[in-house]
Amino acid sequence: MITLMTDFGTKDGNVGVMKGVILRIAPEVQIVDLSHNISPQDVTEAGLVLARAMPYFEPGTIHVVVVDPGVGTSRRPFAARIGPQFIVGPDNGFITLVLKNAKARGEVVEFVHLDRAEYWLKKISDVFHGRDIFAPAAAHLAADASLHDLGTPFDNPVLLSLSEPTRTTSGWRGEVIHIDHFGNISTNIREEHLGWPHQASVRIGETEVEGLVRTFGERAPGELVVLYGSTGSLLVCQVNGSAASRLGVKVGDPCEVIVHSG
Amino acid sequence: MITLMTDFGTKDGNVGVMKGVILRIAPEVQIVDLSHNISPQDVTEAGLVLARAMPYFEPGTIHVVVVDPGVGTSRRPFAARIGPQFIVGPDNGFITLVLKNAKARGEVVEFVHLDRAEYWLKKISDVFHGRDIFAPAAAHLAADASLHDLGTPFDNPVLLSLSEPTRTTSGWRGEVIHIDHFGNISTNIREEHLGWPHQASVRIGETEVEGLVRTFGERAPGELVVLYGSTGSLLVCQVNGSAASRLGVKVGDPCEVIVHSG
Amino acid sequence: MITLMTDFGTKDGNVGVMKGVILRIAPEVQIVDLSHNISPQDVTEAGLVLARAMPYFEPGTIHVVVVDPGVGTSRRPFAARIGPQFIVGPDNGFITLVLKNAKARGEVVEFVHLDRAEYWLKKISDVFHGRDIFAPAAAHLAADASLHDLGTPFDNPVLLSLSEPTRTTSGWRGEVIHIDHFGNISTNIREEHLGWPHQASVRIGETEVEGLVRTFGERAPGELVVLYGSTGSLLVCQVNGSAASRLGVKVGDPCEVIVHSG
Repeated sequence: MITLMTDFGTKDGNVGVMKGVILRIAPEVQIVDLSHNISPQDVTEAGLVLARAMPYFEPGTIHVVVVDPGVGTSRRPFAARIGPQFIVGPDNGFITLVLKNAKARGEVVEFVHLDRAEYWLKKISDVFHGRDIFAPAAAHLAADASLHDLGTPFDNPVLLSLSEPTRTTSGWRGEVIHIDHFGNISTNIREEHLGWPHQASVRIGETEVEGLVRTFGERAPGELVVLYGSTGSLLVCQVNGSAASRLGVKVGDPCEVIVHSG
Repeated sequence: MITLMTDFGTKDGNVGVMKGVILRIAPEVQIVDLSHNISPQDVTEAGLVLARAMPYFEPGTIHVVVVDPGVGTSRRPFAARIGPQFIVGPDNGFITLVLKNAKARGEVVEFVHLDRAEYWLKKISDVFHGRDIFAPAAAHLAADASLHDLGTPFDNPVLLSLSEPTRTTSGWRGEVIHIDHFGNISTNIREEHLGWPHQASVRIGETEVEGLVRTFGERAPGELVVLYGSTGSLLVCQVNGSAASRLGVKVGDPCEVIVHSG
Repeated sequence: MITLMTDFGTKDGNVGVMKGVILRIAPEVQIVDLSHNISPQDVTEAGLVLARAMPYFEPGTIHVVVVDPGVGTSRRPFAARIGPQFIVGPDNGFITLVLKNAKARGEVVEFVHLDRAEYWLKKISDVFHGRDIFAPAAAHLAADASLHDLGTPFDNPVLLSLSEPTRTTSGWRGEVIHIDHFGNISTNIREEHLGWPHQASVRIGETEVEGLVRTFGERAPGELVVLYGSTGSLLVCQVNGSAASRLGVKVGDPCEVIVHSG
């Protein structure tokens, strides 16, 4: 199986073209769209969506990520084995969070530089390597090539610095890392940091929200709630509404949890 | 075959994750997206889109609907047989219109409460039952389980009150039930109510539109037309434009048909 | 394989319904979405996206295009062989650019008027021929019918006049033909017109951009660049931004290249 994640949107036919390229090389492969609405050039967001999705895919799945502001420059195209799955994309740091998770699980990781043109399309543009390099390389990996057939091993992928929450005297200080389709605000504070304090409040934007709940239905529509998302991130949400719009919060904004001793 | 309908949007990877879960359990199943842009928490809209789509799918199709504002509360997750097809989702009333249509066709209907955890993912979150319960239950129904394997039968699903048009001395009074991608305005007045009167006009917003036409091309671009949609609903449309934007009309607004005797 | 392109958006379930219809007739076929966000009624845009995508699909692929402002009128529904591939859709001119390319390659072209109702759904609406005629005809073409089974041959498809750039004393004058998801501005001036002049500038909107580059990374984020897109069109782009928003440019606006003799 191959998954696709891009910042291409779905208007211009470019995702369909990548599928056409893949299916010519690997007609039996199943293709699943992860997202084509990653914010333009946002490699951090791509990494976050990928890291959250990977645990739900079967061993052998190949994830193709094309969020690629450096297309056509010297940034390396790569393929990697991350434990039992594979990733194909540009070496621009989107892989950082996935690698961190893989290390925490003790998984084997291998990278190859996609430098064997026989696994690409014949004509390579300077602006659409998703079509010309990543799609065909992934299709060959699915159909008839091993990871090491595709290119030369390397072990120094580009890494981004990921923001980490810090302890304060009364709790944790973190930041907003994602706003989802509903306007739910996701932070880098996680269940393994904070646990389930008896009493706590969250300061975000100009607001303070009291108490953690388990699920949306514990408060009335229109109220703000704090809860853990399905992958363990602390979320600030509005029941049946958009917390991000209401609070005017965006990715990178600060967020603080105050634990009330009591 | 499994179809998916959600209000998740397509940005965050959650639909892709549901597909990953399904394909791990039922690798041979075909997955078709019905819509992932249902208005957030709008169970009525989900029911309308589902009811219109079902007649075009083959017997045995399993429709998974995850518009689920009550996720994590006591609302029941269910699976149902509706004539020759199946539906999996939360028991929050989205099924109402589908049930009404099934009764009108004399179809057999059966519901089970999804209460057998062996057909779910091992770890269940409080906020993403689409991934943790509905996707795996639907996949097992496609692959290796019968409806009754999945849970305990029940016969009192939650029902919504659906708006019905009423007769007036000169025609019908109804309301707007859907605005589509083009801005076409769909009402709850149907061909079986109104038929094809010789002369009629429709009052909606601040406007009155004269005459029913058969298709868009009978009036010039920019003109308003009244016609029947492809599933029999009376529509108010602007030829090559958005009637909803032009008239400032939204779901729930009134609409009246006046039949001119003559 | 069948690809789908429409202006239906992805909210209302209509694309899913077309897939349901196709898979009932041709359960083994693979379906790829090319775009469902073609601008409403924009047959020129549909033709452009299709022409760019076709070279990447395998022989035998059937492309279904439903951008159909004339649905229900006397405009002909057609199926065509274009070299090794097939196209199914309304005869409204979207095919113009594809035909021009096919002629340039010397490919065989054949059209049939879809006038055999046994290859349609039983009940035909006046507003949704994508579901009722085009999807089933394409599915039969994939599964069990030849092109000539589907209808009566004809050889005068509707053609649009495509804008062509013109030579000036110092370069080329053209126009904007597409704005993509990133806000990149695509013009009808192509690499085969202009080549790679030593020094050139592009006038567009109120701006003049100096120099052609090979790829985005050659200028800093925020700068405007001129380069060739992946199918050979001259593009005006902002590195990591939207040139269309910045310049206030839209489809049909003029654009001029001045070659500096040097």
